[in-house]
Amino acid sequence: MIHFVLGGAKSGKSRFAENQVMLYPAPWIYLATARCMDHEMQEKIAVHQKRRGQGWQTIEESINLADIINTNNVHSILVDCLTLWLTNLLMDNRNIKEETDKFLSALTTFHGNIIIVSNEVGQGIVPDNALARKFINEAGILHQKMAAIAHKFTMVVAGCPLNIKI
Amino acid sequence: MIHFVLGGAKSGKSRFAENQVMLYPAPWIYLATARCMDHEMQEKIAVHQKRRGQGWQTIEESINLADIINTNNVHSILVDCLTLWLTNLLMDNRNIKEETDKFLSALTTFHGNIIIVSNEVGQGIVPDNALARKFINEAGILHQKMAAIAHKFTMVVAGCPLNIKI
Amino acid sequence: MIHFVLGGAKSGKSRFAENQVMLYPAPWIYLATARCMDHEMQEKIAVHQKRRGQGWQTIEESINLADIINTNNVHSILVDCLTLWLTNLLMDNRNIKEETDKFLSALTTFHGNIIIVSNEVGQGIVPDNALARKFINEAGILHQKMAAIAHKFTMVVAGCPLNIKI
Repeated sequence: MIHFVLGGAKSGKSRFAENQVMLYPAPWIYLATARCMDHEMQEKIAVHQKRRGQGWQTIEESINLADIINTNNVHSILVDCLTLWLTNLLMDNRNIKEETDKFLSALTTFHGNIIIVSNEVGQGIVPDNALARKFINEAGILHQKMAAIAHKFTMVVAGCPLNIKI
Repeated sequence: MIHFVLGGAKSGKSRFAENQVMLYPAPWIYLATARCMDHEMQEKIAVHQKRRGQGWQTIEESINLADIINTNNVHSILVDCLTLWLTNLLMDNRNIKEETDKFLSALTTFHGNIIIVSNEVGQGIVPDNALARKFINEAGILHQKMAAIAHKFTMVVAGCPLNIKI
Repeated sequence: MIHFVLGGAKSGKSRFAENQVMLYPAPWIYLATARCMDHEMQEKIAVHQKRRGQGWQTIEESINLADIINTNNVHSILVDCLTLWLTNLLMDNRNIKEETDKFLSALTTFHGNIIIVSNEVGQGIVPDNALARKFINEAGILHQKMAAIAHKFTMVVAGCPLNIKI
């Protein structure tokens, strides 16, 4: 079962997704895409880790999500989150289409339960900054592809779920 | 009854909330959190005031919302809006957690009908600016807490309600 | 039938709207409001044009939408999009209220099927930039008016429709 969870910054999307994964039997794999680059990010990661308790196994992988998904094909996985992963791909000058195709293809052959979290970034004013616009475009394309293959698609607003595709 | 109304900038959220309050018998208290700092804000306030008519009493309070709510415990109140209040708390270097706890606690012991308006700010690109990111974080935390205690939670999009929690 | 389709940047709103128009018999008029100003815009237009195939007639009009709508009163039209149109009105220093009134009035006397696409821009952080704030305000006012006269109003999120007014 593929469940795509989209929400704004600090919308409670990660917490919602954690609770969704924990509806399945442990162990649960937390697939963290974040690179711990600065103090702000460190703090954020620490808060999230502290909240998750027993039964969680954390795997940190900033690029090659498909491999982790393929080798844990029957487990319950939480991928947190796609926008940080996309940031990593852009910073490392990876081929976005190739990498996202590999990821999406791993999802379609997956036999466990996987919840994928991402950040809505496209509902504000279009930024001056060309790189930010590129990021919005790539995130939008990826989100559309994710929602298309997901069995369930939920938007999280202020911690509350809004089911868009059930 | 606590009704939380969230919407983007210029989404029609204040007008929607006014109409919701006016379903209850007058008088209605308009609890304005805005500080009238510049011409743009003055104009906005004037437009809102002109729209509200007979039956409305305006109370301006930019920090201590809990006191106003506690002393009007049985009335119908419209709080407009939380994001401006949060801006005031940040500008005055208040302890955000303490102040929001006081506010949320006043809400839970309130016996009238209260509609609380706030601005969705987290669905655009994450800004460069650390203060803007702090604001998005604090607004997100407050919105999650608000939605959790609200009996009803509505998102307003282009003037139309989207009920998320009923 | 007036159908208003709102979505963030790269949310799949144009593609969704195209499919909606194509539920009606051809020919379909694509009313493009974009001015082809730079390379980025040129590419975007080329991608959209390539996607649309047989049965589509493209009309480019960056200001006077009402005339095109009035002279094609019984056809199926896709207007893509209102935020680019608003940008043109602002750049040409047009009277926004007059122009949008003319447009809305053409819609209310229209006898065909018209799908109108626009960009949600108000759910991010409020920008520093006064012009961006003015744009958000004008877009918000226009979107509220559009949703009010539309028979159907759909938000598109990651390519999926969320019906707000049916």
